[in-house]
Amino acid sequence: MRTEVISLETIKGLKRSCYCGELRAENIGQEVVLMGWVQKKRNLGGLVFVDLRDRGGICQIVFDTDVDKEAFEKAEKLGSEYVIAVKGEVRERQSKNPNMPTGDVEVFANELRLLNKSETPPIYIKDDDDVSEALRLKYRYLDLRKPKMQRNLMLRQQVTNIVRRYLTEQNFCEIETPFLVKPTPEGARDYLVPSRVNEGKFYALPQSPQLLKQLLMVSGMDRYFQIVKCFRDEDLRADRQPEFTQIDTEMSFVEAEDVMTIMEKMVQEIFKETINVDIELPLPRMTYAEAMDRYGSDKPDTRFGYEFVNITDLVEGCGFKVFADCAEKGKSVRGINVEGMAEKFPRKQISHLEDCAKTYKAKGLAWMKITEEGVTSPIAKFFSEEDLNAIVERMNGKVGDLLLFVADKDAIVYDALGQVRLAVAEKLGILEEKKNQFNFLWVTEFPLFEEDEENGRYVAKHHPFTSPLDEDIDRLDTDEKDTLRAKAYDIVLNGYEVGGGSVRISDSEVQKKMFAALGLSEEEAYNKFGFLLDAFKYGAPPHAGMAFGLDRLVMLLAGVDNIREVIAFPKNQNAICPMTNAPAPAEDAQLEELSIKVDIKEEN
Amino acid sequence: MRTEVISLETIKGLKRSCYCGELRAENIGQEVVLMGWVQKKRNLGGLVFVDLRDRGGICQIVFDTDVDKEAFEKAEKLGSEYVIAVKGEVRERQSKNPNMPTGDVEVFANELRLLNKSETPPIYIKDDDDVSEALRLKYRYLDLRKPKMQRNLMLRQQVTNIVRRYLTEQNFCEIETPFLVKPTPEGARDYLVPSRVNEGKFYALPQSPQLLKQLLMVSGMDRYFQIVKCFRDEDLRADRQPEFTQIDTEMSFVEAEDVMTIMEKMVQEIFKETINVDIELPLPRMTYAEAMDRYGSDKPDTRFGYEFVNITDLVEGCGFKVFADCAEKGKSVRGINVEGMAEKFPRKQISHLEDCAKTYKAKGLAWMKITEEGVTSPIAKFFSEEDLNAIVERMNGKVGDLLLFVADKDAIVYDALGQVRLAVAEKLGILEEKKNQFNFLWVTEFPLFEEDEENGRYVAKHHPFTSPLDEDIDRLDTDEKDTLRAKAYDIVLNGYEVGGGSVRISDSEVQKKMFAALGLSEEEAYNKFGFLLDAFKYGAPPHAGMAFGLDRLVMLLAGVDNIREVIAFPKNQNAICPMTNAPAPAEDAQLEELSIKVDIKEEN
Repeated sequence: MRTEVISLETIKGLKRSCYCGELRAENIGQEVVLMGWVQKKRNLGGLVFVDLRDRGGICQIVFDTDVDKEAFEKAEKLGSEYVIAVKGEVRERQSKNPNMPTGDVEVFANELRLLNKSETPPIYIKDDDDVSEALRLKYRYLDLRKPKMQRNLMLRQQVTNIVRRYLTEQNFCEIETPFLVKPTPEGARDYLVPSRVNEGKFYALPQSPQLLKQLLMVSGMDRYFQIVKCFRDEDLRADRQPEFTQIDTEMSFVEAEDVMTIMEKMVQEIFKETINVDIELPLPRMTYAEAMDRYGSDKPDTRFGYEFVNITDLVEGCGFKVFADCAEKGKSVRGINVEGMAEKFPRKQISHLEDCAKTYKAKGLAWMKITEEGVTSPIAKFFSEEDLNAIVERMNGKVGDLLLFVADKDAIVYDALGQVRLAVAEKLGILEEKKNQFNFLWVTEFPLFEEDEENGRYVAKHHPFTSPLDEDIDRLDTDEKDTLRAKAYDIVLNGYEVGGGSVRISDSEVQKKMFAALGLSEEEAYNKFGFLLDAFKYGAPPHAGMAFGLDRLVMLLAGVDNIREVIAFPKNQNAICPMTNAPAPAEDAQLEELSIKVDIKEEN
Repeated sequence: MRTEVISLETIKGLKRSCYCGELRAENIGQEVVLMGWVQKKRNLGGLVFVDLRDRGGICQIVFDTDVDKEAFEKAEKLGSEYVIAVKGEVRERQSKNPNMPTGDVEVFANELRLLNKSETPPIYIKDDDDVSEALRLKYRYLDLRKPKMQRNLMLRQQVTNIVRRYLTEQNFCEIETPFLVKPTPEGARDYLVPSRVNEGKFYALPQSPQLLKQLLMVSGMDRYFQIVKCFRDEDLRADRQPEFTQIDTEMSFVEAEDVMTIMEKMVQEIFKETINVDIELPLPRMTYAEAMDRYGSDKPDTRFGYEFVNITDLVEGCGFKVFADCAEKGKSVRGINVEGMAEKFPRKQISHLEDCAKTYKAKGLAWMKITEEGVTSPIAKFFSEEDLNAIVERMNGKVGDLLLFVADKDAIVYDALGQVRLAVAEKLGILEEKKNQFNFLWVTEFPLFEEDEENGRYVAKHHPFTSPLDEDIDRLDTDEKDTLRAKAYDIVLNGYEVGGGSVRISDSEVQKKMFAALGLSEEEAYNKFGFLLDAFKYGAPPHAGMAFGLDRLVMLLAGVDNIREVIAFPKNQNAICPMTNAPAPAEDAQLEELSIKVDIKEEN
């Protein structure tokens, strides 16, 4: 602990003239005032060299005992991360440093003011410091001094500026919707907020402004957007946060086509202006059915092949029981051909891939290598040569190829083989090699419903306000629910879903049918969404919308693999802020004011 | 309730070509596609006239049975607020309507598609509908169809766009700070959010991002801003909302002067670009002490005079006991001169003013009218002629003037006479007359502390991170707390505080002294603000900032008298959303998941 009281020198009368990182050869001869943090200090005889850092970069400052003895003596006592103001003249540097943007120049100081001292910081202020994330988050205010973190935050602002400019030009109006909204009874992942004034009642923090933006369409606001925080109290995975930011949009008098056209143009502008990458429009499109069939994923990474091949029909009645059983029971057998890479996958590597498949519930991973001598595989002996040849032919197998198969229910095959496909690409260095390639894809015609495995009911795949395809709408009240398709679209980038949306239902009768299909009685539907149904009575326009995950988009633009790298003060995976220790216990008096009580149940 | 299922016509293939309100004489001859709501419909022989409304305005559509019988017959059945798409040709209007921007033209329809029907709406969609606010809020989605409400929302966006552009040009970086933060133990007005993952613990919704933006300064981010929602669970007055929006800024390496210069320029740009009003810079300034002395308010409306005059020294020992007592007991007697307006205030009016004074805790309101015959006043008889003359002279009284006086403790005199001053201006129509005059004012040198009347302790007038004036800093640990001044500044417009800020303490030792002055032990201070004190150990730059209330700013720009008019979905004065009925009871299962229980105490 520091005990002395520092006598700080005021900055009165000194005005910063530019950022440290801005100085170049053309500034030689100018007098400048810089303010920032001491990155490094060296004493060399009668000279003190200081690397001074601010948001703009780093510049070398020289204090010469012959020029200003007082400044020199003060400079000698500087420590790391001291905050100083320096006045001096820009001069040509004797030993130029080509690795620094300011490496041609240095500032010869004639005045130094100490603005604050610093203890030795617990983490290094440099990009390649490999300290634990826990420590980085605890001292986030120091972590954010790192140039890469500052670049990420500035990139984030650049993206939101482009989005706002573009959407404003397109006649969208940014409208703030409330954060204190009505809890949805099914909203298992709502954050609740007790109301003091209305005892025993709760607001919820919005999981998205979905209903409110639809009401804005009913109000005629036409084209709405908002860059807005949303909240979801769910188990946190690597790329989730309790609060996240959405670029949220909604339009009236449009169809899916219009939304996709406007939004892909926005994406194009973002990529061009931030990282100078040209995205060709229109973006490729693929139906959900095709994406699942070819990649086993509704967010396929299309930067590489290894597409799925269905061999179910070929293995009916074959000698390999696992495959034959699947073919018989309406399950499927699918494979991928890792072309020319058989040698890169010795047994041990294949066993890692099999572990990956098993993590995603497959019972195993079958493989075949095609060699000059024919098919090498532990399961080869179960097949007739004819069957083997047919499989190899279907898989387009050539010498040197590795074939990988999963046999199971479709859902498991998709998941497990899809993950194996990614693991193969990772292992082969394809993801690293193509990290600067940006493959966008629209995935369309999502299923309207999906089965909730826990209770066997159908739930909305997107949300209950999504419109079915016109040709499917008449089957809303039949039992063919799993075949219904939605006017929903996701935008996928390199295997990540970066946005999604849909045409909404704008007819209250269709909306009621939709609620009924989801198993809600009229009363339940009205209790939950009565205000929407009411609004739809008074002239709702056709409307559609879309939301982007800003955190993930910026993460991909920044080329980092974790959204916490692009968020100033994120929570950790336990939803805790290690810097402030939020959340924290509340005082009894506070809880009493709110008419609630903590009630922790003992573990069973 | 509507029971039939409407068969909607799709908009497929029809694309809106422009807004209704955009059509002018130069569009004559063009084919257009309009989509919007039926404002009004009239049948005239073989013609149907429809006023069609969208976000852009209103335009007349004509359906002629001779042109397109099918469209005509559909048009005949249209009702108010039906949603339609119309294709047709722009023609010159026969009977022009100079009151409508589109009054020179009309659209001759050759195609009509019904997009949605409407029941009779519960409120009229017109600006001058004088229905109750309760009904307007319940049907907000209809209320927002009113042109004035849409204008307000678009004005709001225009303001945020200007702010973002201006601050970005000034090198500010917009950085999102979290909404789920640590509760401050003293934060009596925090909204709490129970954590599911961290049982028994709570986040708070931020009352402002104060500490986080200061940490961003410690991190070197230099110039931060954010347009951000803040939350305060307080009793709601006419112009308060549980959630409100702030333009929040913070800068490093600056003094108060720099913040004020940058921010007043922003205000100038906002007023010029939105309502074309020129604001002259630099804005006038006044210390807090002067503002209180002259207007009894730290947010004086300087559009009119009636400034306070202190007559305490004149009434010492005078015959009017109320005045004399005050002079004796260290209280004060102050008056205003309502020049030339004596006749506008008969006794009954003065009695209304007295009621106003009493509302603000004054015991009464003394008055004198100056007539040709001398001073008319119920209290005139208590004064010697000499005393009366001295008072009149000090008040600069002339024939026809009305003098009003309050005698009490300073705080009460300021409050009560200040409100009387406003009531006088209101009564005289000055506020209405000057509603397009915008008087800005910086109020500076606020007191650092104020006494908390409930417990007699000192609390921070702004917040505990505000720096004292340099010349007052040494007296932090003396008992002269009520004389200490802060480096704090408010920006005032026509009697409203529209923003405020301060230079912050950036030295942890000074910050500790400040906490001590507020009666916090070292341990308490550390428990509450340890992360800030820690951060200050590692090189905090001098920094200062400011926040504007966006809602109020837009309200003043829009010329309305209630912030709910510039918020899409506000809460009412009971913190309830009448449209969705938020807040609402939560399900037991939800509360159990959150480890809390509702616990309503019986009223005593």
